[in-house]
Amino acid sequence: MSNAPHLDLAAKASATSGSDTWHSTGVEGVLRPLHLSDGPHGLRQQPEDGDHLGLGSSVPATCFPPAVGLGSTWNPDLVRRVGRALGAEASSLGVDVVLGPGMNIKRSPLCGRNFEYVSEDPHVTARIAAALVKGIQSEGVGACVKHFAANNQETDRHRVSAEVDERTLREIYLPAFEEVIRTTEPAMVMSSYNRLNGVYTSQDPWLLTDLLRGEWGFEGVVVSDWGAVVDRVAAVRAGLDLEMPPSRTDHLIVEAVERGELDESVLDTVVERFKRVQERVTTDTSRPLEHGANDALAREAAREALVLLKNDGGVLPLAADRSLAVVGEFARTPRYQGGGSSHVAPTRVHSALEEFGAAVEAGSLKSVRFAAGFTLDGTDDPTLVEDAVAAAREADTTVLFLGLPDSAESEGYDRTTIGLPARQLGLLAKVREVSDQVVVVLSNGGVVSVAEWQEQADAVLEGWLLGQAGGAAVVDVLTGAVSPSGRLTETIPVRLSDHATYLNFPGENSVVRHGEGVFVGYRHFDTLDVPVAYPFGYGLTYTSFAYSGLEVSPSGESDGEGAWTVSFTVTNTGDRAGQEVAQLYTGVEQDHPTRPVRELRGFAKVALEPGESVRVGLPLTGRDLSVWDSRDGRWSLAAGTYTVSVGASSRDLRLLGEVTTAGDRYVRKLTKRCTIGEWRAHHIGGPVVAELLAAFPDLDDVPGDLLEMARSLPIVNLRSFGLGVTEEMLDLLVDDIEARRQAAIERGEITG
Amino acid sequence: MSNAPHLDLAAKASATSGSDTWHSTGVEGVLRPLHLSDGPHGLRQQPEDGDHLGLGSSVPATCFPPAVGLGSTWNPDLVRRVGRALGAEASSLGVDVVLGPGMNIKRSPLCGRNFEYVSEDPHVTARIAAALVKGIQSEGVGACVKHFAANNQETDRHRVSAEVDERTLREIYLPAFEEVIRTTEPAMVMSSYNRLNGVYTSQDPWLLTDLLRGEWGFEGVVVSDWGAVVDRVAAVRAGLDLEMPPSRTDHLIVEAVERGELDESVLDTVVERFKRVQERVTTDTSRPLEHGANDALAREAAREALVLLKNDGGVLPLAADRSLAVVGEFARTPRYQGGGSSHVAPTRVHSALEEFGAAVEAGSLKSVRFAAGFTLDGTDDPTLVEDAVAAAREADTTVLFLGLPDSAESEGYDRTTIGLPARQLGLLAKVREVSDQVVVVLSNGGVVSVAEWQEQADAVLEGWLLGQAGGAAVVDVLTGAVSPSGRLTETIPVRLSDHATYLNFPGENSVVRHGEGVFVGYRHFDTLDVPVAYPFGYGLTYTSFAYSGLEVSPSGESDGEGAWTVSFTVTNTGDRAGQEVAQLYTGVEQDHPTRPVRELRGFAKVALEPGESVRVGLPLTGRDLSVWDSRDGRWSLAAGTYTVSVGASSRDLRLLGEVTTAGDRYVRKLTKRCTIGEWRAHHIGGPVVAELLAAFPDLDDVPGDLLEMARSLPIVNLRSFGLGVTEEMLDLLVDDIEARRQAAIERGEITG
Repeated sequence: MSNAPHLDLAAKASATSGSDTWHSTGVEGVLRPLHLSDGPHGLRQQPEDGDHLGLGSSVPATCFPPAVGLGSTWNPDLVRRVGRALGAEASSLGVDVVLGPGMNIKRSPLCGRNFEYVSEDPHVTARIAAALVKGIQSEGVGACVKHFAANNQETDRHRVSAEVDERTLREIYLPAFEEVIRTTEPAMVMSSYNRLNGVYTSQDPWLLTDLLRGEWGFEGVVVSDWGAVVDRVAAVRAGLDLEMPPSRTDHLIVEAVERGELDESVLDTVVERFKRVQERVTTDTSRPLEHGANDALAREAAREALVLLKNDGGVLPLAADRSLAVVGEFARTPRYQGGGSSHVAPTRVHSALEEFGAAVEAGSLKSVRFAAGFTLDGTDDPTLVEDAVAAAREADTTVLFLGLPDSAESEGYDRTTIGLPARQLGLLAKVREVSDQVVVVLSNGGVVSVAEWQEQADAVLEGWLLGQAGGAAVVDVLTGAVSPSGRLTETIPVRLSDHATYLNFPGENSVVRHGEGVFVGYRHFDTLDVPVAYPFGYGLTYTSFAYSGLEVSPSGESDGEGAWTVSFTVTNTGDRAGQEVAQLYTGVEQDHPTRPVRELRGFAKVALEPGESVRVGLPLTGRDLSVWDSRDGRWSLAAGTYTVSVGASSRDLRLLGEVTTAGDRYVRKLTKRCTIGEWRAHHIGGPVVAELLAAFPDLDDVPGDLLEMARSLPIVNLRSFGLGVTEEMLDLLVDDIEARRQAAIERGEITG
Repeated sequence: MSNAPHLDLAAKASATSGSDTWHSTGVEGVLRPLHLSDGPHGLRQQPEDGDHLGLGSSVPATCFPPAVGLGSTWNPDLVRRVGRALGAEASSLGVDVVLGPGMNIKRSPLCGRNFEYVSEDPHVTARIAAALVKGIQSEGVGACVKHFAANNQETDRHRVSAEVDERTLREIYLPAFEEVIRTTEPAMVMSSYNRLNGVYTSQDPWLLTDLLRGEWGFEGVVVSDWGAVVDRVAAVRAGLDLEMPPSRTDHLIVEAVERGELDESVLDTVVERFKRVQERVTTDTSRPLEHGANDALAREAAREALVLLKNDGGVLPLAADRSLAVVGEFARTPRYQGGGSSHVAPTRVHSALEEFGAAVEAGSLKSVRFAAGFTLDGTDDPTLVEDAVAAAREADTTVLFLGLPDSAESEGYDRTTIGLPARQLGLLAKVREVSDQVVVVLSNGGVVSVAEWQEQADAVLEGWLLGQAGGAAVVDVLTGAVSPSGRLTETIPVRLSDHATYLNFPGENSVVRHGEGVFVGYRHFDTLDVPVAYPFGYGLTYTSFAYSGLEVSPSGESDGEGAWTVSFTVTNTGDRAGQEVAQLYTGVEQDHPTRPVRELRGFAKVALEPGESVRVGLPLTGRDLSVWDSRDGRWSLAAGTYTVSVGASSRDLRLLGEVTTAGDRYVRKLTKRCTIGEWRAHHIGGPVVAELLAAFPDLDDVPGDLLEMARSLPIVNLRSFGLGVTEEMLDLLVDDIEARRQAAIERGEITG
């Protein structure tokens, strides 16, 4: 805090809000204004005369695949390269901090902003987001992870309170933020619009200070989502450093300090945080923009994002002697990103149609005939359908591009259905009637249902939103120039109503109950054994893989509770090169599930030539096996045996093993409100209470069901049964047992 | 409050806890001790030298069917007669207040105490419980409805906090209490053990005072469940009148008054409440006990409680020329009630076996051979199986009595499975192999699954727990002496894991999240269209019924929002007399459900001779169509059209109609935190904001998805967009619109 004290109060207060929509406020001699820009998958830098809403046009930049695409690659190394390219473009454009990546968990497929998020699973989310942050920041530009936290829907996002218990937060909604913050030190964190258990996240001292800084050690700047601050003073007090865009109410901060309602040292801390960030950020506007190389990287990323869902009879890759009908407006006018603040003006756009033309010229396809089939605005045009059917009838294979139009999903609102437009499904049915081979290519930011129509397709390629080079990547995969290697980061359900969140999304009256708790995504489907269209982690390729040789061995890096390496061999058993995403899940046997039957704890993407094998080793820690204990506010690792499984999806487990741990040896403090059952089972209290109960021989005559009833009785209730037990006796007992517990902790026998 | 003031403080405080386990404390000249006794389905009056736990032996009393059985009758008139008999026995035994009926909603089939509760639906619960209260109280004895409230599990019942949002409370867990209290004025209400949203119900001022007394007008005494009080002073302050059993801590009450922490007038009110109750209660121990007549009534009730689930090929009623193998220990040793505080010492017990013998003697069956088949304690005895198979092989029909042993379900703990014991299912499979006709009769307090074994039975008769005369009632129905007329008050799921509560029951760390909200029981299964084994309201009989002539007509009793009579005709189209339970459901069309697809709002049980018809008229009110508005804390009736359906179960709807209402014309107050979308849609604010936005022609250039985003923006956020909108302007606007709203309310145009 060396420089802060000489600043006057007004100057310090001015730092807590921006100078305009895209800049923090400079303080002469201390802070320079930081230039922030939207940009999770490409820069959306607005010209200086940009609109006041901050949502208008921007200068051209490479449009990489949005998070839904990057996540589907399951390839952190590749994503890190994308991050580096993003950082380099930001540096060239003078952008200090890129407002991304988005890391919220896809709680419901209906969330309109799912295309900006990675997965329904926190582990994949953490790995992909960490790679992007590392890449961006390696170029001297800051990243800003968002939206912290539990911002899992767009409906009523400025007010809705996500009602989530702490265990669910700790196990599902926070771990990705925790890991990215601990391992990559992002320059900024963006608080979200919503409330969390009633408190605006921009004003939540537990979230922004106790957890983020206290537990996780975050040292950067917390910026509000644009317009998220309701109470300026409460926000600054809670740990929010920067209100964006400025509401021009810095005088409220000054007045609060003057009235003694806000400690001035809080403002000094804000200034220190900005200083730390500006010291790390060094943009270089003289650097040339590498649009050509970045377009190629965008194509590489898009290739790995494509998920092959179905390939009956090996229709794909397309044989070189096939004549194609390419049907669907999306082939000509690709949908490659979503709407809202992340919308990038691309440097160029590859359509699949032009790339098909190139493939014909190169001799890898015989011929291509295009028909739009439908309009993107949904208007009816029967001649489009007729033309499409005619094209399909004459071709060997029809490649049908279906998907969601721009208006179907965006930041700012949620979907109400996961169906494709009915007109497109009608087109598919008509094309199917006249075509021997139908390949469907999908363009969609959020999951669409496939169950009702996929019988009509021989192959289905899920293209998500792939960025500006997506059209080229699709043709690369369809023609076999590369093998598909994307995997689902979210379950495709049979019916929307099968989803755990169906009756609790998007809530009502500005409250959304997370009724499903930790059972989000595959954790729900797999635990309840609900049929799905395609499971989490799933994806085909043009070759096949075998798994063998599972070993779980202790590693040297134990934190006391155990740490292991899970090793296994993956072999390419087919006749083409390809990549496999080997996935590690853990679980624990339970009579009645309070934990998911399995949870992803590691993965590796491996590229293998035909016949080639590789030995994969994935780390596993005590934390991976732990559950959050809401009563005592700690991670709890029970002694016992846990299942370890390795496979190609959450429902395609190839290797099964187990790991045994002595657990954390945690022994809870006993109180008078603990039950007789808890006392009897207690490491120290058990023997004591057995002795106590032995003093009442009458209990021997009590029937079994009554004894069972007594198990759940708080021990203090014994005072009402005329047994001579008093509260004073119990107080002495509690003190005695606690003293013995503390001694056992000191001796290292237990933890507490 | 005429007599209270002359009492000294200690005397008044003494009234707030009992004098012993079963008596309130008398205060000389003012209050006499009231004798309380367990007894929802039969008196459990303990002799004076009873055990201190209060759970030992009791004097003989008629054991009527527990609530699970009474509920299955769907016959309030019959239940009222049972209540009258209960009240008469109580009066004869000098019992002032019967501790029943239990009215909690069966949230999960696993709840160990479900046999003491009526239904998963509040309407059936209210009707049956109200009938029982009216019957009991018509004999000058008080009833005590319990357990108030949200006591839907036994696990950790002394501490668990049921986390339930207010809408769910108002629509599911409270309406039955509300209706019974409003319409029957029970003498007492028993608070439950659990916490509700963190507060012990025994100490919850909202529950015990604001709601129960303030809104519902309850004037009687609130007694704690036995041992439920944690903080004496907090309990009395919250509105709890009587702690049972006494913890001998009345001095805490005295001290709290003396320290000024508790207003002495609260104690005067307690005394007044006791006086009101004792004025209503007049027991007469000189009355003779009518054990004979009451046994006959218990048999009648049990007959109507039996639910015929399956009757392939009309196996039932049993033809008189059949030889029977009666297999299963339950035929000889009936299980007819559950464990815990409700356990009655019956005046006699009818076993099915002895009644079959009587039927043979009377010539209505050819012969009966008994084999126990299994032991009740679950021990293995292969000879029992061999004997059973031998008996089945020689008989024309095997009647197999399966069910849950006593230890499987009781007050005090929950089940972890809904399966029948594996040994019994093994017996069924073996019997099936040698028997042409198998009839299964079930004895169980909570639902058992049937999906995995019912293919092996030609007929299945669900007998629940039927009270002391159940064995006779079973034979009455099997032989056709009466037709079965019970209906399911709870869904029988295919799998336990299909149940809405599966992952949220019984919670952990003393918290149970009601994640399913209002979607309890059939509200979940039907809204999500989840397959079930047998739906809510289902039950076969020996004849058939047709429905016709649905009419929905306004009734004279409108409360301003509309009141209607739903009329229809039921016709017995078969050749035997029988009873039908015609059920009325309402619902509303929704894109994405926030309300159950249908909810029971009325029913009528009608007895019809072959060919006979009856016109049924059921009332329907605005409240029946309303939803609880958690934001403004009120019942909300939106204008529109609602579906009205009538049928024989929630999935066997025979008549479909609709009803249209203008709604409650409620217009909410607008605030600055209301969204632009809410302002635009507002009856008064809409025109104003349209004018306001017209002042910003720039908005015309904003793309559609951004306008859609703006819909969810709180109007106060406009201050940050450089549009010249200030908070002061908005404050003026809010005031102006509120003034106009108030004027419109005064004019009666709207409500607010």
